[in-house]
Amino acid sequence: MHRIAVVGASGYTGVELLRLLARHPDTRLVSVTSRQSAGQAVSEVFPSLQGSLDLVFEDVDPARLADLADLVFTAVPHQAAMGMIPTLLDAGCRVVDLSADFRISDRTVYEAWYQEHTAPELLAESVYGLPELFRNQISSARLVANPGCYPTSVALALAPLLENRLIDPATIIVDSKSGTSGAGRAAKVDSLYCEVNEGFKAYGLPRHRHTPEIEQTLSRLAGREVTISFTPHLLPVNRGILSTCYANLTGPQSLDALHALFRQRYAAEPFVRVLPQGRLPNISQVAGSNYCDIGLALDERTGRVIVLAAIDNLVKGAAGQAVQNMNLMLALPETEGLLAPPVFP
Amino acid sequence: MHRIAVVGASGYTGVELLRLLARHPDTRLVSVTSRQSAGQAVSEVFPSLQGSLDLVFEDVDPARLADLADLVFTAVPHQAAMGMIPTLLDAGCRVVDLSADFRISDRTVYEAWYQEHTAPELLAESVYGLPELFRNQISSARLVANPGCYPTSVALALAPLLENRLIDPATIIVDSKSGTSGAGRAAKVDSLYCEVNEGFKAYGLPRHRHTPEIEQTLSRLAGREVTISFTPHLLPVNRGILSTCYANLTGPQSLDALHALFRQRYAAEPFVRVLPQGRLPNISQVAGSNYCDIGLALDERTGRVIVLAAIDNLVKGAAGQAVQNMNLMLALPETEGLLAPPVFP
Amino acid sequence: MHRIAVVGASGYTGVELLRLLARHPDTRLVSVTSRQSAGQAVSEVFPSLQGSLDLVFEDVDPARLADLADLVFTAVPHQAAMGMIPTLLDAGCRVVDLSADFRISDRTVYEAWYQEHTAPELLAESVYGLPELFRNQISSARLVANPGCYPTSVALALAPLLENRLIDPATIIVDSKSGTSGAGRAAKVDSLYCEVNEGFKAYGLPRHRHTPEIEQTLSRLAGREVTISFTPHLLPVNRGILSTCYANLTGPQSLDALHALFRQRYAAEPFVRVLPQGRLPNISQVAGSNYCDIGLALDERTGRVIVLAAIDNLVKGAAGQAVQNMNLMLALPETEGLLAPPVFP
Amino acid sequence: MHRIAVVGASGYTGVELLRLLARHPDTRLVSVTSRQSAGQAVSEVFPSLQGSLDLVFEDVDPARLADLADLVFTAVPHQAAMGMIPTLLDAGCRVVDLSADFRISDRTVYEAWYQEHTAPELLAESVYGLPELFRNQISSARLVANPGCYPTSVALALAPLLENRLIDPATIIVDSKSGTSGAGRAAKVDSLYCEVNEGFKAYGLPRHRHTPEIEQTLSRLAGREVTISFTPHLLPVNRGILSTCYANLTGPQSLDALHALFRQRYAAEPFVRVLPQGRLPNISQVAGSNYCDIGLALDERTGRVIVLAAIDNLVKGAAGQAVQNMNLMLALPETEGLLAPPVFP
Repeated sequence: MHRIAVVGASGYTGVELLRLLARHPDTRLVSVTSRQSAGQAVSEVFPSLQGSLDLVFEDVDPARLADLADLVFTAVPHQAAMGMIPTLLDAGCRVVDLSADFRISDRTVYEAWYQEHTAPELLAESVYGLPELFRNQISSARLVANPGCYPTSVALALAPLLENRLIDPATIIVDSKSGTSGAGRAAKVDSLYCEVNEGFKAYGLPRHRHTPEIEQTLSRLAGREVTISFTPHLLPVNRGILSTCYANLTGPQSLDALHALFRQRYAAEPFVRVLPQGRLPNISQVAGSNYCDIGLALDERTGRVIVLAAIDNLVKGAAGQAVQNMNLMLALPETEGLLAPPVFP
Repeated sequence: MHRIAVVGASGYTGVELLRLLARHPDTRLVSVTSRQSAGQAVSEVFPSLQGSLDLVFEDVDPARLADLADLVFTAVPHQAAMGMIPTLLDAGCRVVDLSADFRISDRTVYEAWYQEHTAPELLAESVYGLPELFRNQISSARLVANPGCYPTSVALALAPLLENRLIDPATIIVDSKSGTSGAGRAAKVDSLYCEVNEGFKAYGLPRHRHTPEIEQTLSRLAGREVTISFTPHLLPVNRGILSTCYANLTGPQSLDALHALFRQRYAAEPFVRVLPQGRLPNISQVAGSNYCDIGLALDERTGRVIVLAAIDNLVKGAAGQAVQNMNLMLALPETEGLLAPPVFP
Repeated sequence: MHRIAVVGASGYTGVELLRLLARHPDTRLVSVTSRQSAGQAVSEVFPSLQGSLDLVFEDVDPARLADLADLVFTAVPHQAAMGMIPTLLDAGCRVVDLSADFRISDRTVYEAWYQEHTAPELLAESVYGLPELFRNQISSARLVANPGCYPTSVALALAPLLENRLIDPATIIVDSKSGTSGAGRAAKVDSLYCEVNEGFKAYGLPRHRHTPEIEQTLSRLAGREVTISFTPHLLPVNRGILSTCYANLTGPQSLDALHALFRQRYAAEPFVRVLPQGRLPNISQVAGSNYCDIGLALDERTGRVIVLAAIDNLVKGAAGQAVQNMNLMLALPETEGLLAPPVFP
Repeated sequence: MHRIAVVGASGYTGVELLRLLARHPDTRLVSVTSRQSAGQAVSEVFPSLQGSLDLVFEDVDPARLADLADLVFTAVPHQAAMGMIPTLLDAGCRVVDLSADFRISDRTVYEAWYQEHTAPELLAESVYGLPELFRNQISSARLVANPGCYPTSVALALAPLLENRLIDPATIIVDSKSGTSGAGRAAKVDSLYCEVNEGFKAYGLPRHRHTPEIEQTLSRLAGREVTISFTPHLLPVNRGILSTCYANLTGPQSLDALHALFRQRYAAEPFVRVLPQGRLPNISQVAGSNYCDIGLALDERTGRVIVLAAIDNLVKGAAGQAVQNMNLMLALPETEGLLAPPVFP
């Protein structure tokens, strides 16, 4: 049994990690930490887990955590993550970091969109944990940077097109919509029920912090620098991201051919479901699961392709993908603990 | 591997059965039937199940179904169920019936609240499938009548009090609230999104059909005839029932003592979670799971006890309890396939 | 034009007052105050009011406010209200107080459920502002205590029965459900979208602070001391309260007779709509309006009557009723500015 | 008092027209028709209107209706509208048609996206009822084609940019999201609460019928043929449309300059609110009102401008705009009956 710890487990990503790990057959949770909830039973903070997880939140320092655990999930905000990860690695732990701190390889870019980086020496080593694109590097990594929720949906939506040079990267526009759990569990007026319910708005325009992360992946896929327009919106639902991605085709294509390309690209991927032609994804059909559903449309009048990708932001967009990365790092079956079907309705 | 069939699988209870059975380790789904969806892939009607279940809806008659399956779930409306179950039983199948047709032992009562009963000879044999109360009879039953969603929540809420004669049965008032999946998947104006969203109402007053079913169970527990007031309401959520149950205590009680009683009564029950004293259940904390969460309050000013029970109407209130019954009938571990924690948020 | 001020206008009750007063034909808003939003335009804090209200939040002390305004709405929390109201009254203002501070006539009761009362000399003078019951006293009052949201719904539901001695007051049970705006606009984890959405729970058991206020009104109506069981629940909607009220009839009654009684009692009331027999109220049908919808059921099997009352907690349960009281105090038509139909869907 | 009739008043657009007209000071509703609800009181079908509107749904033929009314709103589906409007006009009525039948001037285009047109002789006469663009023609029109909900939001978002040749029309992409009332009140599985709630999806790709209507208006504004990509999505809310519109600027622009342009363009428009710079619209801030809120962002990295427009699809997107057109046609103040502020929360 591999010994696992979760740092910063009292947010929505944290509780989702606990939900998935509570029933994972080949690992054992040895410590869950939370500064604000230290001393409280997990089931007191999250009654949903009563009966599934009999642990108490601790406030453990990283050095001591490294004695207890073989692999640590860091689910703390950016900046806090880079403060503790060097210690964890030095002590021999492997780390899946759910913050943004090690996702951007280029320190300059990171510092332009976030703040100073205090552990830049690890940027070269850290692996971007999107298994469908970078599976081989993940298996042997000490430090995996778990991708952001929006970037996961966009990368999977556009990879087949960019890998095959079928779209003009300069024309990419990404219009994304996320459920409210993506805003976290902090007490803010903007996240109150009555502020979100029956509402819908864009936010973070025109410089949301996921933009450089998306561009980094798309640039790798395209083999050239890609700059996009990215507009996130806030959906009045708990879970789910739908990204609607627009791009001009570089030449004429049939919907049949595009569809066959996506089917083939993802044929061996257990968590990417290319929908039957003519069907479009709905976030309700992936909720609670690690699936990414993809649908395609061809706008022949304008020469644009429209790719829509739906994920559960807390699963494939965060905790589920982190467990998928853990499985790869520990040489377990990649789908272990992740095959529960979506919960609908 | 036990061979299982689901009849009438294209409603919300049906798809929930498929979700639970798709990953059940000791059974194999051999047939899923639906008159209206016959010929369509399950994943076409329910995209959530793409990748989990590779079956096509069939329109099979009961006689032939009995050749294929050892145990059949009937998830069709009342009246339709009693039409096919005799054939299934005669052909050697065991049946878990999710309709109301075999829940009420007294034919006269059934016919007063529903319509004529066409298979009354089976009423004596059928077992009411609430494992926490009638576990022993379920194991050996040929025909299990899976309880209604409201009745499950009320029976578990009041059993410890009635078994110990702590409340006056004549004073029981049950105020229940159910998520909209309980109204089914039929296309009706009353179930449209805009009719339900931002709304809340009672319905079915004063004679909802679950009333005699609730009274039958409470009467068995009390050892005397019990008549209650029962008011169901429609909640703008997908899943969940909360029943708020009021009754006058027969004598003075402390909250400590009542709490201890509930803890003890359900100590060995894997699916009943008596919450810590002072905590009240929330349907969001059981969603997607087979748990029933119970909380207590004592109103010393009026001498009333208030018991609140929360379940997911599609799981412990329908498909999950049906699988629990199947596990008992097939001598499998009772919790098999049912231990996934609730999905929150 | 009467000069009106609103103190504490940056909460949900505050913005609702502003919405109603912005278009009120016979009054003029001269000052809206908010400590936390002072200096910000109203339309910056509440973009919904851009174009309707061109004011800036101020932080004005009560003494100065009394120079500006003839009538002041105090929409601040209890305890804060009693701190400023004596000053306002002394300076010649009339006051509609939306807090709980002057609703309970008996200082001992107030202090048992809240905290010390610092202006008890005003308790005898203050008038409980439920026009359908106490219209005459309101017109000439200096200080009107605007009723709580739950108490409004319960008083209107039970008044005809208690006035006519048709129910046994000792058997009254009130099961209420409120939309989330009732929890206010403070940043609390419990009020976050993801904590409330798809959830439903009871809270405040068994001693919610609206209990003594409800009991005070019911006692006045019954002409004797009434003690009730009151259970509030939190609904995942923005607006609306539905109270389901149970009581044993003192003698046999027909539904026809009960219905006729309610129709007659409220025939002249512009804001109480007794629904046609057989119809039950839905909060969605009163949203945005000052109506209280009432429906009746008779449970002949148990001898109980069930009265259901639906209001918009922010309108008839708070700001609308406050404007209704203001209209009475200023000798304006009682319905002025309050006749906009509900917004459905 | 002008005499008004509403044909097809039992859908969501119909009830919204009734809500607005019930309190309109200068008109009188003389007949509301509905084939399916004929004989039922309006308040039976729509309890929200009890007390505001004392009428019974009728099934009146157009010829007779023309005797009763001076102006008729036709709120029936396309194809049905063109069947009755010639009769109404011949009999001397003026008509505001809320269907799509007279929005598209070019019969060929209409027939390519809808079906055969049976009253093409009226296409030249009918006026597209978007007052902010075509006010002068509306006043004297016999037949006004009330714009679609999506097209209204897009036209107001892009008009200032196209009128001033600031964007390249070939690069316009419109990503729209609509509340579920836009899908109508017909009983369909796809519109059920549990199908929509907690879900989000695109639909109608790539040929939604509002596309040619949007393109017709944008082409008029641009003075050249405009072809766009348009993707509608279904939001789990009752009311509201947010359109996120992307286009490449034809030359460098500052956000200040763009903002000033929009402010100036709409300075005299009572129903268009250009938000303060840096603020983005939220559908919750226009709900229940006739406002269109507009926000701007400039993506300097890509040279794109992003314009976001929010309306209530039932008000400015349908019934409110229809009343605005009626006011113009009857030479009433344009804002009559339409100035109630949005209802938030």
